[in-house]
Amino acid sequence: MRAEILTVGSELLLGQIVDTNAAFIARHLAGIGLDLFHKVTVGDNQGRVAEAIRTALGRAQVVITTGGLGPTADDVTREAVAEAFGRDLVFVPELMEQVDAFFRARGLPSSPSNRKQAYIPAGAIPVENPLGTAPCFIVEEGDRSLAVLPGVPREMEYLLVTRVLPHVRERHGIQGTIVSRLVRVCGLGESRVGELLADFMTRGGNPTVGTMAHLGRVDVRIAAKGPDDASARTLIAPVEAAVRQRLGDVVYGTDGDTLEGVVAAGLEARALTLALVEAGTGGLVTERLTAGGAAARVRALVASPADAARTLGVEDGDSLAPRLAGAARAWAGAALGAAVVVGPPEGEGLSRAHDVAIAVRAQGPAGEWRHRLAGDAVQVRARAQVLALDGLRRALGALGR
Amino acid sequence: MRAEILTVGSELLLGQIVDTNAAFIARHLAGIGLDLFHKVTVGDNQGRVAEAIRTALGRAQVVITTGGLGPTADDVTREAVAEAFGRDLVFVPELMEQVDAFFRARGLPSSPSNRKQAYIPAGAIPVENPLGTAPCFIVEEGDRSLAVLPGVPREMEYLLVTRVLPHVRERHGIQGTIVSRLVRVCGLGESRVGELLADFMTRGGNPTVGTMAHLGRVDVRIAAKGPDDASARTLIAPVEAAVRQRLGDVVYGTDGDTLEGVVAAGLEARALTLALVEAGTGGLVTERLTAGGAAARVRALVASPADAARTLGVEDGDSLAPRLAGAARAWAGAALGAAVVVGPPEGEGLSRAHDVAIAVRAQGPAGEWRHRLAGDAVQVRARAQVLALDGLRRALGALGR
Repeated sequence: MRAEILTVGSELLLGQIVDTNAAFIARHLAGIGLDLFHKVTVGDNQGRVAEAIRTALGRAQVVITTGGLGPTADDVTREAVAEAFGRDLVFVPELMEQVDAFFRARGLPSSPSNRKQAYIPAGAIPVENPLGTAPCFIVEEGDRSLAVLPGVPREMEYLLVTRVLPHVRERHGIQGTIVSRLVRVCGLGESRVGELLADFMTRGGNPTVGTMAHLGRVDVRIAAKGPDDASARTLIAPVEAAVRQRLGDVVYGTDGDTLEGVVAAGLEARALTLALVEAGTGGLVTERLTAGGAAARVRALVASPADAARTLGVEDGDSLAPRLAGAARAWAGAALGAAVVVGPPEGEGLSRAHDVAIAVRAQGPAGEWRHRLAGDAVQVRARAQVLALDGLRRALGALGR
Repeated sequence: MRAEILTVGSELLLGQIVDTNAAFIARHLAGIGLDLFHKVTVGDNQGRVAEAIRTALGRAQVVITTGGLGPTADDVTREAVAEAFGRDLVFVPELMEQVDAFFRARGLPSSPSNRKQAYIPAGAIPVENPLGTAPCFIVEEGDRSLAVLPGVPREMEYLLVTRVLPHVRERHGIQGTIVSRLVRVCGLGESRVGELLADFMTRGGNPTVGTMAHLGRVDVRIAAKGPDDASARTLIAPVEAAVRQRLGDVVYGTDGDTLEGVVAAGLEARALTLALVEAGTGGLVTERLTAGGAAARVRALVASPADAARTLGVEDGDSLAPRLAGAARAWAGAALGAAVVVGPPEGEGLSRAHDVAIAVRAQGPAGEWRHRLAGDAVQVRARAQVLALDGLRRALGALGR
């Protein structure tokens, strides 16, 4: 069964905001097995919105619109829907009451312009919006469903997941579900991961296996269709086990796991403190570890390699990273010391590259890695950060519990 | 004159990535005065891409596509363009040479599949892509132009700005231009900026003045239409002067200026080094200063307030920021010392807030600021980072040249 997304808003066509709603809706439509072939954006123009709705309903059974439901004159989606279906707009007292209640709860007066928000096309199914003032609605005609949602992401996301998708599933008899599981990988390129999983990726069937490359990382996505969540997960489990077994310790987590979260959790579980020297990554690694929840366990020195060596009283030069890691550990009285050192650029233009060294020390050496990274300074810092976090992850893993 | 954007990629329809390209292109089309009425996304399906191209060319004179130009089997944009125009794909040896040169420069072999990238529709204008392997091209037919760009944002942005837009302007005789000037503000809320500039913002005409709020910052946009760049800038100049005069020293720059870039340039111009303590901002300020170009001039300690005090041998407790700033300066032998200290959360729920203190020291005190920031830890860190950079900017300004 086909679906289509229509996002409405001149601010999208002026490039003032990026359309994150469409990606959210797309993921959730895929999650109930609907095929999305077109995603369209039009501005706040009643005629063009109405035409886009008619086009969408001509090629998809389920159409979701977002935006254009506010109280101001340039919010024209409800008028456009009425035009597209040839229906009148009718006043729904219950919706007006919801809008009024929203303002009362905040001690604010509702504006006369909010009255407009209580009008929906005749015969439409009103959908209460407990998070905002824009009521939304669903129009059914023949075997087609049009769900009209507000553009505010928080409201749209809530209404889509709790109201619209359950309605669509029931109305169109959608039984199955698609569950995706991400296996997260750091330390192998996408092509190598693809080679190791080639048979899974080419055999088709259910579940399917695919890869997505990110900066310094790869996600393996295992997606299964099943009559319900539990049975889809049952299909995924043996494939995930096989994928993990093939890939080994380059797997650092699943689904929402992050490298920084894994390292933070590893420090926390072992009650370890970390003294970190960032010589050339400009604080990126510390920033990530803080975001991952390790703020209280990390003390970091951020400086150029020469300044870091001077500050910690070690000799600059070759193999600086392990010396910095050891000195930082002593300096901060921490259980672990680590250093990432980005060397100066070598070569010119497209062959420009930096040597990156990462070292971790506990009582003794706990890991050392060397890489050569091509690219500009921003790219090299970003990739060195990923490699440093992965080094910390591996060193923590090697320490045991 | 109308334009349309077509972004191609199944990953966009699965919601795996957010379409940031479309917003970039939209801004630049608006910048040369083109009207964008539709923005469409389709998956990697030759028939649907071809149909979307025909639809777009039926309602817009300038159509820009991105994506689907890679070497793999699911990259179908060039075939779809050929289908839409009823032209054959022809091999262009110069494009093959560019692809080969790209790989040679990296010491890599080009794959046989890259050969596909040297085919473009007969009669199309090839456009060299110095940043990647996907050549792009422009097809002209009657009064319509179709520009076909890769999906990699860095490549797309470069090719759009340097190749496609100049071509489109010349081909379609686009004389007028819209020039936007951003005046960048930190230290005043958007509503206060709006009050100070109310007469400019409501009078309409040319140029127009508007505001956009960002985290801890506000941009004032002055946009003028004119027959050419110079005349539009002539209209902007007196308005910009008046805006700056009204706003005073909360203005930190224009257009692409960033707080971190201004601080980095200020350190560089005065040949000063900075010892920075981040106690509660997790390395964010250092990361920004590094991105702004100050890596060689900054040495930073990132730790909790208590750990920072212990490491630098100062007493913890009230008014910690100036003590840390002074101790850091001595510790690193730097001309400037600075500290940002984020206190523990106070209050619950919506009234949860953190005290944030910022201090800068040169020979003597060079600035001290206190703020109380509401929100969760991520928001507070992000806003504290902006305030710390603005404190550094003000302190550097006060030092004189």
